[in-house]
Amino acid sequence: MKIIIVGGHGSIGRRVVDVLAKKHDIITASRSKGNVNVDLVDIESIRELYETVGDFDAVISIAGEAKWAPMNEMKEGDYYVGIRSKLMGQVNLVRVGMEYIKPNGSFTLTTGILADYPVDQTTSAAMVNGGIHSFVRAAALEMRDGIRINAVSSGLVEDAIDKYQDHFPGHNAIPMRKVVNGYIRSLEGKGNGEVIRIYDNQ
Amino acid sequence: MKIIIVGGHGSIGRRVVDVLAKKHDIITASRSKGNVNVDLVDIESIRELYETVGDFDAVISIAGEAKWAPMNEMKEGDYYVGIRSKLMGQVNLVRVGMEYIKPNGSFTLTTGILADYPVDQTTSAAMVNGGIHSFVRAAALEMRDGIRINAVSSGLVEDAIDKYQDHFPGHNAIPMRKVVNGYIRSLEGKGNGEVIRIYDNQ
Repeated sequence: MKIIIVGGHGSIGRRVVDVLAKKHDIITASRSKGNVNVDLVDIESIRELYETVGDFDAVISIAGEAKWAPMNEMKEGDYYVGIRSKLMGQVNLVRVGMEYIKPNGSFTLTTGILADYPVDQTTSAAMVNGGIHSFVRAAALEMRDGIRINAVSSGLVEDAIDKYQDHFPGHNAIPMRKVVNGYIRSLEGKGNGEVIRIYDNQ
Repeated sequence: MKIIIVGGHGSIGRRVVDVLAKKHDIITASRSKGNVNVDLVDIESIRELYETVGDFDAVISIAGEAKWAPMNEMKEGDYYVGIRSKLMGQVNLVRVGMEYIKPNGSFTLTTGILADYPVDQTTSAAMVNGGIHSFVRAAALEMRDGIRINAVSSGLVEDAIDKYQDHFPGHNAIPMRKVVNGYIRSLEGKGNGEVIRIYDNQ
C-alpha cells in the first residue's frame, strides 16, 4: 500500500514508520521534516499535500497538538490551539482526503488515553481526543467505496516515559510494539468506526 | 438552591425548569426568551450573565447548537458552528462560571447519545458531544471548594420525537421524567466528572 503518515517523526510516528516501511510504500508528511510538508491547521496546506502525493491507499495521522495548562490559567484561545490542530486538523485530513483516497482505503487518526482517563491540566487535550473519538464513529457511517476510518488511542507510551511520566502518576507504560499494532489493526484489518484503545489499566 | 438554567425553553429545558422550580430558585438564560439574555458563542456575554445574576449555586446548560449535514457537504466553517456554540460555549460557561459560583456548587452540561451512538449526518454534532464528555472528566479533576461538574447525555427524548425520529431509526424514546432525573442526579447528587447516560438501547 501507498501510505501517507502525517507526523512520522514523533515518539509513536517513527516506530510506526519503521515497521510499516518493511512492507509498504511510506510518504511522511510533517511541518518541516517529512517527505512532504503539511501544516495541519491550514486546510489549503492539507489539500496541497494530497495534490502533491497523488494516488494513495491510506492516511495515518499521528500529529496535532493541544495545550496543557491548569484550567484556571487557560484562555479561550488556548483551547483553540487544540481545536485547530489536533481536532479540526485531523478532521480536515479526512474530509479533504476523501476526495483523493483510493477505494478501500483507510484513515487512521490518533487520540490518547486522556479522552477516557484524563490527568491534571488536560481539559483541552482530553476534549479534542474525545471529540475525535465521536467524530470517527460518526464519520464511519458516511464512508463509501469501502473506505474506513478508525482512531488509535494509546496510554503513556514507553518511548515517551521520560517526558510524560510525571503527568501520569501510576500509569503503566505501553510497549511500542503494542502501540504500532494498533495502527496495523486499523490499516490492515477491516474495522470501521473503531476507537482502538491500547491501555493497560490493570 | 439558586440555579441558572441556560436554555430553559427547549424540549428538555422546559421540563427541567418545571420540575426544579418546585423546590429551587430558577433563573433562565437564553438568547432572547430567558430572565437574562446570553449568547453562548460570546464569552463577554457569558461574563455579563454571571455579573447580572450575582451569587448562585448551580448552572445547568441545556443549550448550544451544532450543524447537521452530510459530511461531504460540510464546510470547515460548518464544524465551527458547533465548536463555538455547543462545545466552547459550554466550556466557557464553566470556565467563567468558576469565578462566580458558590462553594459546593455544580455545573451540569448537556450532550447527547450521538457522542456514543451517532447517526447519519452527525460528524459535527457527535464530535462536540464527545468533546464535552472528555472535557467534563478532565475538568472534574480541577474543581475546587466542593464544586462539581457532570454532563447529561440523553437519547432521543419523547418531547422531540416528531422533530427527530426520522434521524434516529429504531431508537427508543426516553421519557421526559427520566431525562429530568439525569439533571437532578447531577444537581442534587454528589457525582463529579460523570457522564450521566440516559439511553435505552435494549
